Amino acid sequence: MLILMDQGATPEHVGAVMALLEAAGIRAYVQESPAATSILAPHASQVLKADRIEPMDGVNRVVPITSPFKLASADAAPGRTVVDVRGVKIGGRDLALIAGPCGVESREQLFTVARYVAESGTRLLRAGAYKPRTSPYAFQGKGLEALDLLEEVRREFDLGIVTEATEVETFDEVERVADLVQIGARNMQNFALLKRAGRSTKPVLLKRGLSATLEEWLFAAEYVLSEGNRNVILCERGIRTWSAHARNTLDVSVIPAAKALTHLPVIADPSHATGRRDLVIPCARAAVAAGADGIMVETHCQPGQALSDGPQALLPSDFFQLVGQVTGIRDLLLKDHPGATFCF
Amino acid sequence: MLILMDQGATPEHVGAVMALLEAAGIRAYVQESPAATSILAPHASQVLKADRIEPMDGVNRVVPITSPFKLASADAAPGRTVVDVRGVKIGGRDLALIAGPCGVESREQLFTVARYVAESGTRLLRAGAYKPRTSPYAFQGKGLEALDLLEEVRREFDLGIVTEATEVETFDEVERVADLVQIGARNMQNFALLKRAGRSTKPVLLKRGLSATLEEWLFAAEYVLSEGNRNVILCERGIRTWSAHARNTLDVSVIPAAKALTHLPVIADPSHATGRRDLVIPCARAAVAAGADGIMVETHCQPGQALSDGPQALLPSDFFQLVGQVTGIRDLLLKDHPGATFCF
Amino acid sequence: MLILMDQGATPEHVGAVMALLEAAGIRAYVQESPAATSILAPHASQVLKADRIEPMDGVNRVVPITSPFKLASADAAPGRTVVDVRGVKIGGRDLALIAGPCGVESREQLFTVARYVAESGTRLLRAGAYKPRTSPYAFQGKGLEALDLLEEVRREFDLGIVTEATEVETFDEVERVADLVQIGARNMQNFALLKRAGRSTKPVLLKRGLSATLEEWLFAAEYVLSEGNRNVILCERGIRTWSAHARNTLDVSVIPAAKALTHLPVIADPSHATGRRDLVIPCARAAVAAGADGIMVETHCQPGQALSDGPQALLPSDFFQLVGQVTGIRDLLLKDHPGATFCF
Amino acid sequence: MLILMDQGATPEHVGAVMALLEAAGIRAYVQESPAATSILAPHASQVLKADRIEPMDGVNRVVPITSPFKLASADAAPGRTVVDVRGVKIGGRDLALIAGPCGVESREQLFTVARYVAESGTRLLRAGAYKPRTSPYAFQGKGLEALDLLEEVRREFDLGIVTEATEVETFDEVERVADLVQIGARNMQNFALLKRAGRSTKPVLLKRGLSATLEEWLFAAEYVLSEGNRNVILCERGIRTWSAHARNTLDVSVIPAAKALTHLPVIADPSHATGRRDLVIPCARAAVAAGADGIMVETHCQPGQALSDGPQALLPSDFFQLVGQVTGIRDLLLKDHPGATFCF
Repeated sequence: MLILMDQGATPEHVGAVMALLEAAGIRAYVQESPAATSILAPHASQVLKADRIEPMDGVNRVVPITSPFKLASADAAPGRTVVDVRGVKIGGRDLALIAGPCGVESREQLFTVARYVAESGTRLLRAGAYKPRTSPYAFQGKGLEALDLLEEVRREFDLGIVTEATEVETFDEVERVADLVQIGARNMQNFALLKRAGRSTKPVLLKRGLSATLEEWLFAAEYVLSEGNRNVILCERGIRTWSAHARNTLDVSVIPAAKALTHLPVIADPSHATGRRDLVIPCARAAVAAGADGIMVETHCQPGQALSDGPQALLPSDFFQLVGQVTGIRDLLLKDHPGATFCF
Repeated sequence: MLILMDQGATPEHVGAVMALLEAAGIRAYVQESPAATSILAPHASQVLKADRIEPMDGVNRVVPITSPFKLASADAAPGRTVVDVRGVKIGGRDLALIAGPCGVESREQLFTVARYVAESGTRLLRAGAYKPRTSPYAFQGKGLEALDLLEEVRREFDLGIVTEATEVETFDEVERVADLVQIGARNMQNFALLKRAGRSTKPVLLKRGLSATLEEWLFAAEYVLSEGNRNVILCERGIRTWSAHARNTLDVSVIPAAKALTHLPVIADPSHATGRRDLVIPCARAAVAAGADGIMVETHCQPGQALSDGPQALLPSDFFQLVGQVTGIRDLLLKDHPGATFCF
Repeated sequence: MLILMDQGATPEHVGAVMALLEAAGIRAYVQESPAATSILAPHASQVLKADRIEPMDGVNRVVPITSPFKLASADAAPGRTVVDVRGVKIGGRDLALIAGPCGVESREQLFTVARYVAESGTRLLRAGAYKPRTSPYAFQGKGLEALDLLEEVRREFDLGIVTEATEVETFDEVERVADLVQIGARNMQNFALLKRAGRSTKPVLLKRGLSATLEEWLFAAEYVLSEGNRNVILCERGIRTWSAHARNTLDVSVIPAAKALTHLPVIADPSHATGRRDLVIPCARAAVAAGADGIMVETHCQPGQALSDGPQALLPSDFFQLVGQVTGIRDLLLKDHPGATFCF
Repeated sequence: MLILMDQGATPEHVGAVMALLEAAGIRAYVQESPAATSILAPHASQVLKADRIEPMDGVNRVVPITSPFKLASADAAPGRTVVDVRGVKIGGRDLALIAGPCGVESREQLFTVARYVAESGTRLLRAGAYKPRTSPYAFQGKGLEALDLLEEVRREFDLGIVTEATEVETFDEVERVADLVQIGARNMQNFALLKRAGRSTKPVLLKRGLSATLEEWLFAAEYVLSEGNRNVILCERGIRTWSAHARNTLDVSVIPAAKALTHLPVIADPSHATGRRDLVIPCARAAVAAGADGIMVETHCQPGQALSDGPQALLPSDFFQLVGQVTGIRDLLLKDHPGATFCF
């Protein structure tokens, strides 16, 4: 259940409710928001009735959470969640942009890309240190060496770092450097990794699996949330279908469909969704028009030389064009939405 | 091959080339465009070499068509095709809007919807007289009675009529009334129907099949084109995948992918692509942002009373919102495109 | 509803029930079977209650048909339907085999293949006179010339002819020659063609569409059945998925799933389901093991010379191996099934 | 490259070749088989030419491995691999059967099922101690308690234990008890887990991912193989498609397609492939008929009481029927295959 407190509720009121829940053996979370404080108590209705809580001082009303996603559900929060990644608000009014090369390849490559990414006004840099690859013989990322370069590039350009954790074993290393830890599509149901991410102090970017339904994706988020990490961002990155003109099929309607079910931010990755440079910009625009809270794209100074995913990396000039176009679309949509956040 | 004539080429020059082609047994088409006249001669390179034609008076150069879609290919026309549907240009700078109920149900229903569709500035009305239905026991459309109502509503509101031809047997009736004849998704490879549409004097709206690849879709267009009808508009309407939150999956990346391969206009139908009213507007915006030349949506004055597809029909107020939003996105995209047409 | 008559019911008893139904405006069908006579009256329960009929003389009991497939439903017949195609019983105990080239190419090719097909004990020959092709420029079949050759080859080798009707316009010609008229996968929802097939005197082989659900497939059968033709055979031929090692994915579980819902026979076409010669025999065995009532395969004397679908055509020696193996599996399964027909 | 030794080659001959490879920095594996010894040296051709090795004493010839699956490829072994799981040979002539409940629920449940599984002649028992579940709130398995019960049941009934390792963290515990360690579908690209399995002394059962291509599946096997564990068994368990009559689509043609590309054994799991009890037996038969080396099924004494996957668990009587039918089909197929192993 979600217990909405009165606007004038005091810390003591909140404390009394929490004490009652604790006494009943229920795990609960206090949620602050500009409007009012709320207490989220998933599964509480199995133990306590609403009419035991509603009469308490400072309690406005109790809302049942009928969704199976007790923490991810739109019912479970008083408004939309805004995740702060090194000062960039994801899920609020501004469109979040994340860009960079597929993998860290060299100091020169990373710094060259970071420079023009920063120049574009983008404040989050993506680049993989650990790369999950289909073949054991393919380039697997530069690991610790890459993480060191990412720390350096952050200082140099004041960029937040988005990088992937591929396994529990190296999670600590990634977590130390990342401002936003990515869980990749192939690991969307790697439950041990999700639980570890749930115990992280860093926000988590959870990519949708190649054949994950919306429901499965939200349950994966639930694994992270239920370990205590409330900063989860969902990322649609294309699904596997028989449609052969692109590497994957950008399931653009899942963006508004997800935002109808969850309070978490939803962004899109048109690079992996298409695998074709010429489709990345149109699909980035489409995702933003559908209500995405942000875009993550691959860009490379010399795509032809990239060690992985070259054919989908945007050239610098394309990237600047993308930034202008998607920002323009977001601004247009915001005109109709006077509130502090944006749904769709 | 595509034979591009000089800007100053005379009708005699064109006639001489056509005579040569005819003598060689080659079927060819003269194409006028603002830039220059061209002659499209599919399969000609199997019979004649370019250096037999290039020296002729008035000929600028000869371009081979390497695509298997000899007539639909982007190589087969000097620019993008603009189809004129009762004065509405589809494929040019303006976004084309087509709206209306799934099926014609009654005079009152049709006129009520047509009135607000016309008020919104939309100039093309969609409504089915013949409905292809999965079950033989479901509402199959009102047939001739519906066609008569469509004629009446056209006169009353000065709207172009878009309606579906479901079979060769009733094609003549539909063709008489329609300003744009729709071929539905389930008939995308009904080759007899495609050939009949190819002999029509009316433009054709060719929906993509539920499991058609881009290549198969263009070959279906080629069936229409190769019978002589050059006015074909493609319509993405969602594909069948395992992704279960919506009735179909809007394959938004196929819009720019199609526009890269063909000179034909490409529009989208977010109503059938999603089957959920709340996803129609976000997906309409996405399709336009991806470069669609138009949008076709279902709207109904009383969706709860609709005889078919009620859950996806937009309410009148939603429809007005959609018109405003998609037009705004199109205008934004056009700022970067000074030409007479718009690619993506 | 399905009205099961007593074993000793007389024609007069049946006539009285039919008269009552007719008086109530209900279309009904008398079905003879070894066990007992039954009367199928789809949609009758909307008009008449069972207790109006059950007391009548000769009536055993009335069973409601809750399925939406009023005629195709397993509830709608007292047992499994056995379709007789020129003496070959499909849906009974024996496995039905249908084999031949993709298309009729020449007298020599057709007769060579027919000779070894007949030698193998197979009594039904498949070969296309009209070929539905993705491209308008591909080989479309030899039409009337091919139909004449099929008539000739039938006389010569005493083979039943299975050939495809691709459109209403040429249905009469095909119907004249065919012993079993095939409706292809791309036409599974060509409703005009289904209705024409429903008025045919010949049995119909209805292939599953590339992306048709089991429910849609049974509704397509219902279109044929509801026009009066009760001899429909279903054919699984692979569905379109992202699984790329074969042209399509043989959905083998749909065979028992279909047999659980319908009384109609179900066969499989492993040639189109795989598109790879080396997978045809294992998949034919799999389909029979799953309960298919028959197998339809492509075989060609010189697959390398075939005008269409060469890569999936079995060599003569492979074909003989297939016949032996699938017959062996069927015999094994029958040991556990003492009845006159075989379910799974 | 694969270096095939002469039949009379001595250990010294083999040692000399190994020494040469080692000196060149190449990792190589000696493979014994009834026919002859071979040395597998993946990637060796990048360093050494065949004509440097072929003249050596005891060397018969050198075969290049052109496949990207250097160790899994059919080219990489002199024959089919037979994996020994506690005396049960998987990949040889006999069909391997693995059966048991989805999860270990209680001592009584486990022992009841194990008793009738053993009575049927089946020698491998499956049961999950750790269950990967879509929801964090669903039954996740009994962990260590279940592993203890599995040890006990093995002693009691002399059954080999097949159980799943869901994460690196608990792999040691599972490995201690399991005779065959299962890697589940959702973990097929959990590369850390695959590598850990590659360092295990126990054979590995690698399930195909829900949306994994055959190529990706073989690369996953390659991850295990390249860490040194040569005992990998592949298991087809249904893929995710839009076909809705069953939980997944059994991709039966992948069985022969996999056996054409790899020397590893391939089995099938019709329980997860269908999710419907009534489809399990027909699909088990289909998989065996297609050439599967074994079948893994879920069976439960009281499916209605199962904590997970009850609707797909076979009743004891069904299970005995399955054993009889699939064994019969295998025996039939073996008649045509006189060799020591069975391909398809």
